[in-house]
Amino acid sequence: MVTLNEGERLDYLLHEDLKIVQSQQVFSFSIDAILLAAFAYVPIQKGKIVDLCTGNGVIPIALTKRTKAHILGVEIQERLYDMAVRSVQVNHLEQQIQMINADIKELPKRIEHGQFDVVTCNPPYFNTISEDELNRNEHYAIARHEIYCTLDDVIKVSSQLVKQKGKVALVHRPGRLTDIITLMRKYRIEPKRIQFVHPKKDKDANMILIEGMKDGKQDIKVLPPIFVYNENNEYTKEFSDIYYGRI
Amino acid sequence: MVTLNEGERLDYLLHEDLKIVQSQQVFSFSIDAILLAAFAYVPIQKGKIVDLCTGNGVIPIALTKRTKAHILGVEIQERLYDMAVRSVQVNHLEQQIQMINADIKELPKRIEHGQFDVVTCNPPYFNTISEDELNRNEHYAIARHEIYCTLDDVIKVSSQLVKQKGKVALVHRPGRLTDIITLMRKYRIEPKRIQFVHPKKDKDANMILIEGMKDGKQDIKVLPPIFVYNENNEYTKEFSDIYYGRI
Repeated sequence: MVTLNEGERLDYLLHEDLKIVQSQQVFSFSIDAILLAAFAYVPIQKGKIVDLCTGNGVIPIALTKRTKAHILGVEIQERLYDMAVRSVQVNHLEQQIQMINADIKELPKRIEHGQFDVVTCNPPYFNTISEDELNRNEHYAIARHEIYCTLDDVIKVSSQLVKQKGKVALVHRPGRLTDIITLMRKYRIEPKRIQFVHPKKDKDANMILIEGMKDGKQDIKVLPPIFVYNENNEYTKEFSDIYYGRI
Repeated sequence: MVTLNEGERLDYLLHEDLKIVQSQQVFSFSIDAILLAAFAYVPIQKGKIVDLCTGNGVIPIALTKRTKAHILGVEIQERLYDMAVRSVQVNHLEQQIQMINADIKELPKRIEHGQFDVVTCNPPYFNTISEDELNRNEHYAIARHEIYCTLDDVIKVSSQLVKQKGKVALVHRPGRLTDIITLMRKYRIEPKRIQFVHPKKDKDANMILIEGMKDGKQDIKVLPPIFVYNENNEYTKEFSDIYYGRI
């Protein structure tokens, strides 16, 4: 059993196979994280993965469906870190996942560089914030806005932690595509695979999945797009296969 | 009437509204050029457009369906330039289109900077070439490979020729996406709109349409993708509407 604090609930993740501690007051995972966990390359049998800005740990937990590699989750907010730790416990994943409560910018001073096969991150998306937004809900503000870490920090730290030819996979908003690509190249993470997520077939993309390789060869593939809803506003097959963990 | 040289033929362009001089021996336009002519922003009533690496002039000629602006086409190969001039004549477009036989790298020394509302270009795609390929057909080799102008040249010259807040629109291969985006930012052409073309819904993109603005605000939209063929290997409606000039 898991202890739930006030406002928290235990939700299913990936079609009832896994559970996760959530809280509307503090943080709930989004489809962005699930799509990243399905998109990222992972070694199947062994290796080391680190998930930066892990929140309540949704990406590490979802990744255990695809890999036996050891996964480190890093979260700066103590309350979210605490939720992540309990989510690991409730799924009996303590052998595979370790959570730490830390600022990702401090990590390269604390742990060995170039040790991870894969870095994943669903970072804060927005580079500006109003005083009002910050005051309304600090937990959400930190998760959504570049308050404690910028996109530059995320990509710089990823590059320090990943090994040569290792992978760095991010999910972000399309509006930052140019920033992401120029920063990846700046920090020697050569973009290799990119996939756009559109709410519908005739709508602009609202999400981007991108993976680069440390000192990889210059070449990038643009994968088939993912459409979330069909004309009848139902989930498309390609999306529900990912969201419900059928692939 | 138009004089056709040996190996040349007169083809229809955009559903029989326009004609173009082609030659399998030297150069035939591709769907890439037609898609770029449909994708690029153009002023409707007046203004100035320049098309770099214009080949047989397909982009300027196709653009006349969408704009009354004056269009300058620039082609380095005399034989293609000559085809372009005759294509303009056969469509009676001498008042709107001017072709010049020049190296685009020399243009900024010859004409006034910052004078164009829009720059379009379907540049050579490949950055390497074998001796064998070069010898087999020099005309195609020059049109397809970065022999006389590199992607860096194209974007640098575009940036010099376009006016402040003017647009630069390119078609290219997805494998060069990272290069295109980093070079655009290097030369102050901020990427604003991007669209991927996939041969089919479940295939990787094989073409990219991208438009930037000189000193534009940092923000980019990823438009709905274009699929060329449907499951029955017929042109999709979205593609045939563009290819046959219905939009």
